[in-house]
Amino acid sequence: MTVTDLPRALLREDLANASGRDVRAAARSGQWRRATHGLARGYVQANMAIVPKRYAFDFMLFCQRNPKPCPIIDITDPGDPEARFAAPGSDVRVDLPGYRVFRDGELVAEVFEITDHWRSDSVAFLLGCSNSMDDVLLDARIPQRHLESEDGRISVYASNIMCAAAGIFRGPVVVTMRPIPQNRLVDAISITARYPMAHGAPVHVGDPRAIGIDDLSRVDWGKYNELRHDDVPVFWACGVTPQAVAAKARIPEMITHAAGHMFVSDLKLTQLAHGTR
Amino acid sequence: MTVTDLPRALLREDLANASGRDVRAAARSGQWRRATHGLARGYVQANMAIVPKRYAFDFMLFCQRNPKPCPIIDITDPGDPEARFAAPGSDVRVDLPGYRVFRDGELVAEVFEITDHWRSDSVAFLLGCSNSMDDVLLDARIPQRHLESEDGRISVYASNIMCAAAGIFRGPVVVTMRPIPQNRLVDAISITARYPMAHGAPVHVGDPRAIGIDDLSRVDWGKYNELRHDDVPVFWACGVTPQAVAAKARIPEMITHAAGHMFVSDLKLTQLAHGTR
Repeated sequence: MTVTDLPRALLREDLANASGRDVRAAARSGQWRRATHGLARGYVQANMAIVPKRYAFDFMLFCQRNPKPCPIIDITDPGDPEARFAAPGSDVRVDLPGYRVFRDGELVAEVFEITDHWRSDSVAFLLGCSNSMDDVLLDARIPQRHLESEDGRISVYASNIMCAAAGIFRGPVVVTMRPIPQNRLVDAISITARYPMAHGAPVHVGDPRAIGIDDLSRVDWGKYNELRHDDVPVFWACGVTPQAVAAKARIPEMITHAAGHMFVSDLKLTQLAHGTR
Repeated sequence: MTVTDLPRALLREDLANASGRDVRAAARSGQWRRATHGLARGYVQANMAIVPKRYAFDFMLFCQRNPKPCPIIDITDPGDPEARFAAPGSDVRVDLPGYRVFRDGELVAEVFEITDHWRSDSVAFLLGCSNSMDDVLLDARIPQRHLESEDGRISVYASNIMCAAAGIFRGPVVVTMRPIPQNRLVDAISITARYPMAHGAPVHVGDPRAIGIDDLSRVDWGKYNELRHDDVPVFWACGVTPQAVAAKARIPEMITHAAGHMFVSDLKLTQLAHGTR
């Protein structure tokens, strides 16, 4: 399938079995400007954060020290918008279906491409994303409550677990919560542990108060997905962490993907399983 | 055991079952100034490279893009000589039993401590080391030919596999070769694959010419360890790679461990196995 074969108005189902390249082309052409959950199944999706080079060492150090929230999939050369490892031929300025532009830590614009914002010293970080974990869990037939509605929004919270700081970057680990049936708990942990580039094993299982979350119904991002009978709340580190930390550091410029509007790579998750690189 | 309990003239056996902290204390006090193979068994050993901060982003990017030769165990804050993750309380300026100082890519000194060379912008990279892999293979009763002599020197070659470049850092993957009995080949691969921080799975098995090595007896570093009947040559990525690349880039200042004189951390290898961080 190529994007040119597709009807002008794309549905999520049209891109469910597309390649990462197809999704990027659809974003680039303006045919797809929505969230990317459920698209290009099996292809690794990534959070993106673009920072000026003078902040890039500290930001990379922050990611290196906090591999669960910030698994590094690819980092571009300064000024080069191509993610050469994750997606040869890509252009991070136009290949995502939506972007957010921050100044001094404040959101100033939501845009569909960032050509005018890209600088000769821009460095793009592509970091693992829990959309990829959804695929792994679904393949194992572990229910994913948040995908049962069209918006696909997961429950996201700031925990009281602190990241290891690096330079000006410091803050709490942000976590996603998935309700997991008790009888699939061991599977959910051992299966996700194989995929460090999709945040790996959970950071916490069970009582939310143990990680500083008093009320599951009050999410910090996304929406609350209810626990059903016999469900256990399971918390994985979330790629919102580095963005929240970078915004809090109030660096003069930062560009990220818009919420849920991820970079879809050419990599299959199995290529990034333990032991393969 | 503490180092103060030990006799003044230490033997390798005295430190074989010591902790990483004990070995660092022995190096710091001048009681141990030799190679660290066989010491503090089970504790992660690390290659070290210290570069000025202005090169640290590109050097970290190089490591991130080449995880097999350059597995990042810890990186210090600029100017801070403590490896806070790998060994709280450590001091990378005095805790290794030997150092090499380079200027413009040329070796200018071999010293026992580097206090006078440490700068306010120095960044120390601690990168995985095949000494740690030796432990894993020995525990699996896979013979390690190079450890059968006291000098413990392994066979090291520059291959024709090119690293992914980053900034000024580029060059070939340097590899160690271990002769592995044919009937332990699968074990050697699958077991080392579990330990990415000790270089992980091999980069090549079998015919050395396939990776540009014409004559195994002509090593580039270390010494040749002969293949015996039914041995297969197995090649793992080597921590000499980033040093060779940094020397070739002729950066004005670089400090490394002396050959075989590693940083011994407080981490157990099992803490760095897949899925644990």
